[in-house]
Amino acid sequence: MLTGRLIEYDEAGDDVRRIYDDIKQSRGVKDVNNFWKALANHPPTLVRTWESLKEVMAPGALDARTKELLYLAVSITNGCEYCIRSHARGAAKQGMTAEMFGELVAVVGMANETNRLVNAWQVPVDEAFAGTLQF
Amino acid sequence: MLTGRLIEYDEAGDDVRRIYDDIKQSRGVKDVNNFWKALANHPPTLVRTWESLKEVMAPGALDARTKELLYLAVSITNGCEYCIRSHARGAAKQGMTAEMFGELVAVVGMANETNRLVNAWQVPVDEAFAGTLQF
Amino acid sequence: MLTGRLIEYDEAGDDVRRIYDDIKQSRGVKDVNNFWKALANHPPTLVRTWESLKEVMAPGALDARTKELLYLAVSITNGCEYCIRSHARGAAKQGMTAEMFGELVAVVGMANETNRLVNAWQVPVDEAFAGTLQF
Amino acid sequence: MLTGRLIEYDEAGDDVRRIYDDIKQSRGVKDVNNFWKALANHPPTLVRTWESLKEVMAPGALDARTKELLYLAVSITNGCEYCIRSHARGAAKQGMTAEMFGELVAVVGMANETNRLVNAWQVPVDEAFAGTLQF
Amino acid sequence: MLTGRLIEYDEAGDDVRRIYDDIKQSRGVKDVNNFWKALANHPPTLVRTWESLKEVMAPGALDARTKELLYLAVSITNGCEYCIRSHARGAAKQGMTAEMFGELVAVVGMANETNRLVNAWQVPVDEAFAGTLQF
Amino acid sequence: MLTGRLIEYDEAGDDVRRIYDDIKQSRGVKDVNNFWKALANHPPTLVRTWESLKEVMAPGALDARTKELLYLAVSITNGCEYCIRSHARGAAKQGMTAEMFGELVAVVGMANETNRLVNAWQVPVDEAFAGTLQF
Repeated sequence: MLTGRLIEYDEAGDDVRRIYDDIKQSRGVKDVNNFWKALANHPPTLVRTWESLKEVMAPGALDARTKELLYLAVSITNGCEYCIRSHARGAAKQGMTAEMFGELVAVVGMANETNRLVNAWQVPVDEAFAGTLQF
Repeated sequence: MLTGRLIEYDEAGDDVRRIYDDIKQSRGVKDVNNFWKALANHPPTLVRTWESLKEVMAPGALDARTKELLYLAVSITNGCEYCIRSHARGAAKQGMTAEMFGELVAVVGMANETNRLVNAWQVPVDEAFAGTLQF
Repeated sequence: MLTGRLIEYDEAGDDVRRIYDDIKQSRGVKDVNNFWKALANHPPTLVRTWESLKEVMAPGALDARTKELLYLAVSITNGCEYCIRSHARGAAKQGMTAEMFGELVAVVGMANETNRLVNAWQVPVDEAFAGTLQF
Repeated sequence: MLTGRLIEYDEAGDDVRRIYDDIKQSRGVKDVNNFWKALANHPPTLVRTWESLKEVMAPGALDARTKELLYLAVSITNGCEYCIRSHARGAAKQGMTAEMFGELVAVVGMANETNRLVNAWQVPVDEAFAGTLQF
Repeated sequence: MLTGRLIEYDEAGDDVRRIYDDIKQSRGVKDVNNFWKALANHPPTLVRTWESLKEVMAPGALDARTKELLYLAVSITNGCEYCIRSHARGAAKQGMTAEMFGELVAVVGMANETNRLVNAWQVPVDEAFAGTLQF
Repeated sequence: MLTGRLIEYDEAGDDVRRIYDDIKQSRGVKDVNNFWKALANHPPTLVRTWESLKEVMAPGALDARTKELLYLAVSITNGCEYCIRSHARGAAKQGMTAEMFGELVAVVGMANETNRLVNAWQVPVDEAFAGTLQF
C-alpha cells in the first residue's frame, strides 16, 4: 500500500480537483506544486491548509511580500528545505531582491543567535516589557 | 562567585561603558535594556553583539520595521519570551500596529504548521525550485 | 580514519553481535536497520539505546501502535527524515492506516501552529492548569 | 495602546462571541480558556484556529484521546508550557491516566534522543524506507 | 488525582529510594534535585534515566567538565531553563569558570546563527566532507 | 537572476577576496569551503561572520577543540547536516578521536532527552539554582 504519492489532477477526486483549480486560478499557474500534490493524500488537510493559507497570506495590514519574508524566516529557522526553496521563489515573485534576501538571512541568523544569548544568561524581562504586550 | 548579574553603568569597565553610551545614543534611551546588562558579564560578546546588531538591523534593502518583524517571527518560533517582548516593543516603535502583529502571528503559525506538513509527507523539491536558489 | 560506517554483523564484536541478535529476534527480521549499524560505531550507545527502546516501546498502559504514533509526532516536529521514514514503517506494521497517518499529520501540524500562537501572545496559564500537573 | 489582553465575553464583538459560544457548547464548559481570550485580539485567527482545531481534533480514524496525546508529544518537544498544561488536562479528560502520561513522556524523551543520534551519525535511509512513504 | 508532585524520600517506594540513595552517594549530596523527585512519578523512567546518565556522564575519552559543557550547549539551544541552571551549577562544580561560560555562550550563539546561514543559502556539502564521517 | 551560487575567488570582488585570503592563511588551506563561497553572495555577512568566528573560535579560557565539540553539539541538536559534517572535520583536526565523538553524541542525545523530561513534568527550579547564575 502506498501513501505520500504525488496526486495528479487526472487521478484526483472532485474535492481535490476543486482545490487544485482554485490554486491554479489564484496564482496564475498551470500546475500546482508538489506540496499540494502530497497533501492531496489527505483531502481534508488539503482543503483546510489551502483555505487557511489563502486567508493568511492575502495582503492586509502587511503586504504580500512581507508575509513571504516572514514565511522564509520561519522556514530557515526550522531548516525546512522545501519550504525555504518554495517561499524564496514566492518572495522573489513579490519583488524580493537578492540584496533583500541577503539582509533577511542576516537578521534571521542574528535572531537565532541572540535568542540563545538570552537563554544562556537567563535575562530577566525588563519592567517596561512585562505584563500584557503593549503597542 | 556570581555571574549573570545585570551590570550597571557605574560598576562597568571602560569597554562596557563605551558600548552602553553608543546604545543609548543610537536608540535615544536613558538606560540600556537588561539584555545588554547581562551580556556585559562577557565584554567581548557585548561588543561583538552590539556591533553586529547595529549593522544588521540598520535600514538597507529592507526597512527597519521589516527587520524587527523578522526578528519577532524567529523569536516566536523559538519561544524566547524576552526576545518576543523586547522586539514587539521595538517593532511597535517602528510603526507595527496591533493589526500587523495579529497578521504576523498568523503567518508565523501557518509557517510552523506547513513546515511540518512538508516533513511528514517528505515532499520532494519541485524541479522548478531545485539547484541554486534563483531570484 | 573512518567512523560512521555501517557495521555489518560479520565484522562486529561480540557485544554488538549480541544486540543485533536480540533486535533480529525481538522484531522477527533478518537484518538490523542502518540506525543500529551506525550506532555500532560506539558500542556502549548501541547497547544502552536498544535496551532503553526495548523497555520504552513495549506495550504497557499505552499500546505499541500509540507509542509509534508518538514517535512519529516528535520526529515530524524535529524534521528527522530517517526517523519519520523508519517509524512510519514501524507504525504501519502496528496497524496504522493511511487515514490514521493523515490525521496524525494534521494534529502535529496544528500543534506546531498553536504552540507558536501561545508564544506570540504570551498567554498566561489559566488558574485551573497552574501548579502541579493534575490528572 | 494595549494588545494581548485577555478579551472577556462582555467586551467582545459578535464574531468573537459566536466562537466563544461554540467553544463553550462543544466542550461543555462555562468559560473559555485564556488561549481563546488571547486569540480574540485578532478575530480572524480566533475563528480560523477554532474551526481548524474542531475539525482536526474530532474523533476519526484516530480517537480523541490519541489526538490529545499527540498534541502533548509535540508541545513537550517544543517546550510550550501553556500547551503542555492545557493538553495534559485535555488528555486526562479523555481518559489519560498518570501511567499513560509517564509512558508518553518516556517515548517523547527517547524520540528526541534518537532523532539526534540519527543526525549525529548521518544515518543513510535504508532502501526499504526510501522513496514514497508506504503503508 | 495528582501527578508531577515532587516525591520525597519518605513517601517513596523501594525502587525510588534505591535510586535516590545512589544519586546521593555518587554525587556526595544530602538530597536529590527536583528533577529526580519529578521523575519519581514514573519509577521506570527514574531508574533508566539515572542509569543512563551515570554511564554517559562518567569521565571517559571526554572528561566530566567537557561533558557538562556539552549538556549546557544543548540546553541553551533548546531553551530549557531548568537544565541550563542545573548544568551551569554542575559545570561550575567541575571547574567551569565565568570566563569559560562566557566563551561557551559565544560559541553556542554563533553555532545557532551559522546553522541558519547554512539552511538559508542551502550550502551544498563539500566533496571533502561527503559520505561516511571521517576522523 | 541567480543567487546562492558558490562564488569562486576569480569572480569575487576585493572585499570577498580579502576574506578568502585571510581564511586560507588562518587555516592553512588552499581553498575556502562552500560555506564561505555561499556567504559571499552577501559580502557584509561574509565579512561579519568570518570576523565573529575568528574571534569566538580562537583558543581562550576554552581550547579550540572544546569549542569545536560545542559547535558539533549545537549542530547535531539542530540537525544541520552541513554543519555537522564540517565541524566533525574541524574537531578531528583539533584532535577529536572516534571515541570522543561517540561520547559527545551520547551526551547530546541524553541532553535532548532530559530537556524534554523537564518540560513534560514542569520541574520547578530548585532554590539552590534560582536567581542569578552563580559560579
